[in-house]
Amino acid sequence: MKMHNHTVSSVTIPPLAAGHLRSDFDLTSAELRSLLELAIDVKAHPAHYGNVLRGAIVSLLFEKPSLRTRITFEVAAKQLGGDSIVQTGPIGGREPVKDVARNLARWTRMIAARTFAQQTVEELAQWSGLPTINALSDLFHPCQALADMLTLREHWGGWAGRTLAYVGDGNNVAHSLMLDAARLGMHFRCITPAGYEPAAEIVEAARGFAAATGARIEVTSEIEQGLMQAEAVYTDVWASMGQEHEAIERARLFAPYQVNEALMAMAAPGALFMHCLPAHREEETTDAVMESRVSVVFDQAENRLHAQKALMVMLAAQLH
Amino acid sequence: MKMHNHTVSSVTIPPLAAGHLRSDFDLTSAELRSLLELAIDVKAHPAHYGNVLRGAIVSLLFEKPSLRTRITFEVAAKQLGGDSIVQTGPIGGREPVKDVARNLARWTRMIAARTFAQQTVEELAQWSGLPTINALSDLFHPCQALADMLTLREHWGGWAGRTLAYVGDGNNVAHSLMLDAARLGMHFRCITPAGYEPAAEIVEAARGFAAATGARIEVTSEIEQGLMQAEAVYTDVWASMGQEHEAIERARLFAPYQVNEALMAMAAPGALFMHCLPAHREEETTDAVMESRVSVVFDQAENRLHAQKALMVMLAAQLH
Amino acid sequence: MKMHNHTVSSVTIPPLAAGHLRSDFDLTSAELRSLLELAIDVKAHPAHYGNVLRGAIVSLLFEKPSLRTRITFEVAAKQLGGDSIVQTGPIGGREPVKDVARNLARWTRMIAARTFAQQTVEELAQWSGLPTINALSDLFHPCQALADMLTLREHWGGWAGRTLAYVGDGNNVAHSLMLDAARLGMHFRCITPAGYEPAAEIVEAARGFAAATGARIEVTSEIEQGLMQAEAVYTDVWASMGQEHEAIERARLFAPYQVNEALMAMAAPGALFMHCLPAHREEETTDAVMESRVSVVFDQAENRLHAQKALMVMLAAQLH
Repeated sequence: MKMHNHTVSSVTIPPLAAGHLRSDFDLTSAELRSLLELAIDVKAHPAHYGNVLRGAIVSLLFEKPSLRTRITFEVAAKQLGGDSIVQTGPIGGREPVKDVARNLARWTRMIAARTFAQQTVEELAQWSGLPTINALSDLFHPCQALADMLTLREHWGGWAGRTLAYVGDGNNVAHSLMLDAARLGMHFRCITPAGYEPAAEIVEAARGFAAATGARIEVTSEIEQGLMQAEAVYTDVWASMGQEHEAIERARLFAPYQVNEALMAMAAPGALFMHCLPAHREEETTDAVMESRVSVVFDQAENRLHAQKALMVMLAAQLH
Repeated sequence: MKMHNHTVSSVTIPPLAAGHLRSDFDLTSAELRSLLELAIDVKAHPAHYGNVLRGAIVSLLFEKPSLRTRITFEVAAKQLGGDSIVQTGPIGGREPVKDVARNLARWTRMIAARTFAQQTVEELAQWSGLPTINALSDLFHPCQALADMLTLREHWGGWAGRTLAYVGDGNNVAHSLMLDAARLGMHFRCITPAGYEPAAEIVEAARGFAAATGARIEVTSEIEQGLMQAEAVYTDVWASMGQEHEAIERARLFAPYQVNEALMAMAAPGALFMHCLPAHREEETTDAVMESRVSVVFDQAENRLHAQKALMVMLAAQLH
Repeated sequence: MKMHNHTVSSVTIPPLAAGHLRSDFDLTSAELRSLLELAIDVKAHPAHYGNVLRGAIVSLLFEKPSLRTRITFEVAAKQLGGDSIVQTGPIGGREPVKDVARNLARWTRMIAARTFAQQTVEELAQWSGLPTINALSDLFHPCQALADMLTLREHWGGWAGRTLAYVGDGNNVAHSLMLDAARLGMHFRCITPAGYEPAAEIVEAARGFAAATGARIEVTSEIEQGLMQAEAVYTDVWASMGQEHEAIERARLFAPYQVNEALMAMAAPGALFMHCLPAHREEETTDAVMESRVSVVFDQAENRLHAQKALMVMLAAQLH
């Protein structure tokens, strides 16, 4: 894999050192910032990037349902001058993941995969040798976090010293948000019922990043304290894809964590409301909050496209 | 939404006032005629329209199975210089229609949707703000009727004073045909068993249009009288998508309404046979009629493409 | 259908006389050789062929699951400057095959279909009038055999006098390999348990071709004798798509025919290992053989793309 700079309409794009986005850990702090700056330019000047994937086909693999992720990757590939093929269903169903990966490597130039196991993304990257993007796994949702950081940048101008409170299940979205916030110098509070905290290793890793930026990474079950002074409040569904059988028990446990108008009032005045969608109204949040003036959920959705395009531009640097 | 004329290869295309084709009612009589004239030009000179959707992605949503509609919209988007993404399954399944609509508005420029409820099309239009096309709902099938009017124009040179007899279920196809016939000055006879007539409000509306054009809109259960002098005989399946459980009862009731050679002989000599497909041979019609010299069913199918392209060209006028 | 030569970047491409690839029989021996030579050029200079399908949409129909076939046809259509639409599920499910064919002919320029019945491919060709490609049927898998012949050509420089041994079920893949080997002058041994031999008519036909080239076509249940001096050993799954219910009985009968290291040792030193994929490790072959230095299975997969592109270039000659 050649590692040199890549020039798109007179902007020099450095390749990503890891060559993949298997998880948030594949981005250095500097790369994360570069990517978000690039995303702003990609959003402002889409036509400048219309030849980046000229002639290249991207493999889009989905083990779980998807609206936003599939469509934004399909549109991204086309807007970058390439195209995509979509495969749904279990990735290792008819043959081992290592065979699927080696097949795709023969016809396509990049992979984005939504998987149950993180291991599946890792194997696709390892065996294909293609730039491979985690489009959500049970552990991480790095593309969502990139879109969210871009959204906050647009609303705030920057991240340092701000406070983002995530309320609900300490899941893949929480993991990715925490890791990005830590590297961007944004305080992050994860407010979850006991037993649903994010993975301890990831909290540790985020605190490691935070040591360099001054961010504070906190995990708590205290709602009021957690929301105090928060300038953005983020939530996600209580039972993620694959956890639907736990939905009833989770609904009981998570009820106090519903992000409704009362909870929003505990945060800083004018705090933004964020959600990665799809949202279950009157469960983890309410229609009133979703439809309120501070809700930026569709900005987040839009930014999936621009953030992923920036990521693909950086990964494409190694294709040339 | 800016409303100005749009120029494609020196032809000036006025935008549609409603900005959508949620139902046939979204077209004024003048717009309907303009659209059909444009369709003739689009069919004759496809290359002139190869940049109309340059860079634009069309959202194609299907709650029901589709061959003709999906493929013709996919091909139309590509031939107009754009592309499409396809989503199948319930539109409001994982999140409310209003959220789906606002997501799609962030990444794509136009929507075509095949839905059960007419309400779903209306909500998509309302919440997305994108030009939205009804690609069949339980109440209307306006794209089919446009293709059919184009087909009749090609065979007859015009519509005024001609008679189209529709035999069978007074369904969405019958509604759209009736509304278009009335505005184009074509007599329309809907021949259905008692209890399966088209909706009274739509018959009333069609008669309202007909008052201005001299068309006669009749609903009857008398087959022989209804077919007398008819220059085209149209039928559709007896049980539409979603009504399969009523198929046995409907088969008994509709049996006398089968468009076979005996029925065709009751119409004017040389009367055309029409069907929106898929056809169930030996149910609503026979193989002999389907394969006869007067059958124009594949012309109708082809014209789906050209009529929809003309519609999309007119709707694209408001994108620029 | 006009039959004249077609020029692509100064190479003259003759159209295929049959106008289709419904089965291997649609290629004359001379056309087979021309196609494989063209495939080498298409692989070496893909950009020379980037306008062959400009503006054309290819219909891809799949009655059975597919990874390699669907993706390679999708990528092929795009790389040739066209595009494709994909339809999955029974081809004659909602309407007769003859109606599907006549619909597709109105909007698209070429068909590739994976079907259960060979008859379905034949009907699509007959009723559509479009160049129609068999993308696997219960009787033939001609595109796979083309890719395999291309792979052997790359490894060996030619085929004449070489020996290919196919071990396992005398299925569609065996049929197509046998017919191509016979015409290219390559000896072919089909080693199957009694009762699972290839169809007698196809063996006869292959022997007819072989009479002109000096190839020997043998069918045997003797493993050691069949593998003696074989320079390539090919296997496929024991229960093909649609035969899963016979899997247990087949597993017992086919066990001695597993292509493992012991069997590979019976062939010529350095013999290549081939498989059309997906492979079931530790059934018809082993992980050790699949991952060995002589395994060319991913070259075969890659060559699906190039061989199919060459085929589509030849079929496109009749579109102009």
